[in-house]
Amino acid sequence: MSEIARRGLMLVLSSPSGAGKTTLARRLLESDPGILMSVSATTRSMRPNERHGHDYFFVTPERFEEMAKANDFLEHAHVFDHRYGTPAGPVLEKLRGGGDVLFDIDWQGTQQLKERAREDLVSIFVLPPSHDELERRLKARAQDSDEVVARRMAKAAAEISHWPEYDYVIVNRDIDRALFQIKSILEAERARRTRLIGVGEFVAELTR
Amino acid sequence: MSEIARRGLMLVLSSPSGAGKTTLARRLLESDPGILMSVSATTRSMRPNERHGHDYFFVTPERFEEMAKANDFLEHAHVFDHRYGTPAGPVLEKLRGGGDVLFDIDWQGTQQLKERAREDLVSIFVLPPSHDELERRLKARAQDSDEVVARRMAKAAAEISHWPEYDYVIVNRDIDRALFQIKSILEAERARRTRLIGVGEFVAELTR
Repeated sequence: MSEIARRGLMLVLSSPSGAGKTTLARRLLESDPGILMSVSATTRSMRPNERHGHDYFFVTPERFEEMAKANDFLEHAHVFDHRYGTPAGPVLEKLRGGGDVLFDIDWQGTQQLKERAREDLVSIFVLPPSHDELERRLKARAQDSDEVVARRMAKAAAEISHWPEYDYVIVNRDIDRALFQIKSILEAERARRTRLIGVGEFVAELTR
Repeated sequence: MSEIARRGLMLVLSSPSGAGKTTLARRLLESDPGILMSVSATTRSMRPNERHGHDYFFVTPERFEEMAKANDFLEHAHVFDHRYGTPAGPVLEKLRGGGDVLFDIDWQGTQQLKERAREDLVSIFVLPPSHDELERRLKARAQDSDEVVARRMAKAAAEISHWPEYDYVIVNRDIDRALFQIKSILEAERARRTRLIGVGEFVAELTR
């Protein structure tokens, strides 16, 4: 008998800057071929090392606006002068095929995703290990003024205040340990009954 | 900073006979010192190789009845001529200390546990890999008649029909793979936000 058929899931990682989320996302993608990074659409220009459809879908502001109006985005946001959004089509197609999709988005994007896809969403908030360590990581360059660091710290605190909206909370004290926790959550959520659309069929054959 | 304080959880494994649950439970306990087996009370007699308080709490029928009336059991049942039950006290004490407790109980016990401890409960249903394999495992001895095997199969099918009441469903096709899934579920559930009673305190220190 084959594996039990299941729906894919959307795994959201959120954290303040300086919690190591980008490294965790990259290592998760490298270690598990069953999960793919969501590719966002953006109105900003392509940089030399970027590829359309791989790093981003690069679209005009007019096209972005059309897509937003047509409800084609699972979530979208303004960041500085540009717009960013997750096109729904490719994500929903992967989910239907039993594939999983990873999102590196903030609490606002997560809230929007929740409204569109409550049951398929699994959200993890990654915390830095301590106040001192967070400050150290936010002080990226030696010449950063205290004021700049204080501003980054306030921004981090604002993002952190949204931890109660997440399914799981982990502390990135050790990158291998944090990665292990994320991989465990992914593995567990893949075995969640509500996602296993093929159990009825499997059990019917088992007890024939 | 120390780890985030959390409540322990109750991990329930249920399955029909012949799905390998007993081996999975033993291997989980061996591999993870943070989870302990729940010890049941029973009215049956102690066997030579058993220890009171380790294998079971051996009690008189009168004492069992008193405990049942005092609501001292998380779940209890009649099996043949004897009574079995899970005393609430030791379990709740372990949970409060952040320890996890493993239960090897059937669907009826699981239903009773749910009523007493909904939030602390994590339930996994273990399925055998196929009809033929289940039949092979239920035919324990060569001299078992077709009728005996058919009766065991019907009992297994009745237990299996309760899979929709569980949080997770796994197939024990390969013992190492199934153990990995159970360990992932345990690890994930330990990071579930609703269990992490210490996040508020941790975050307050982080963003001071």
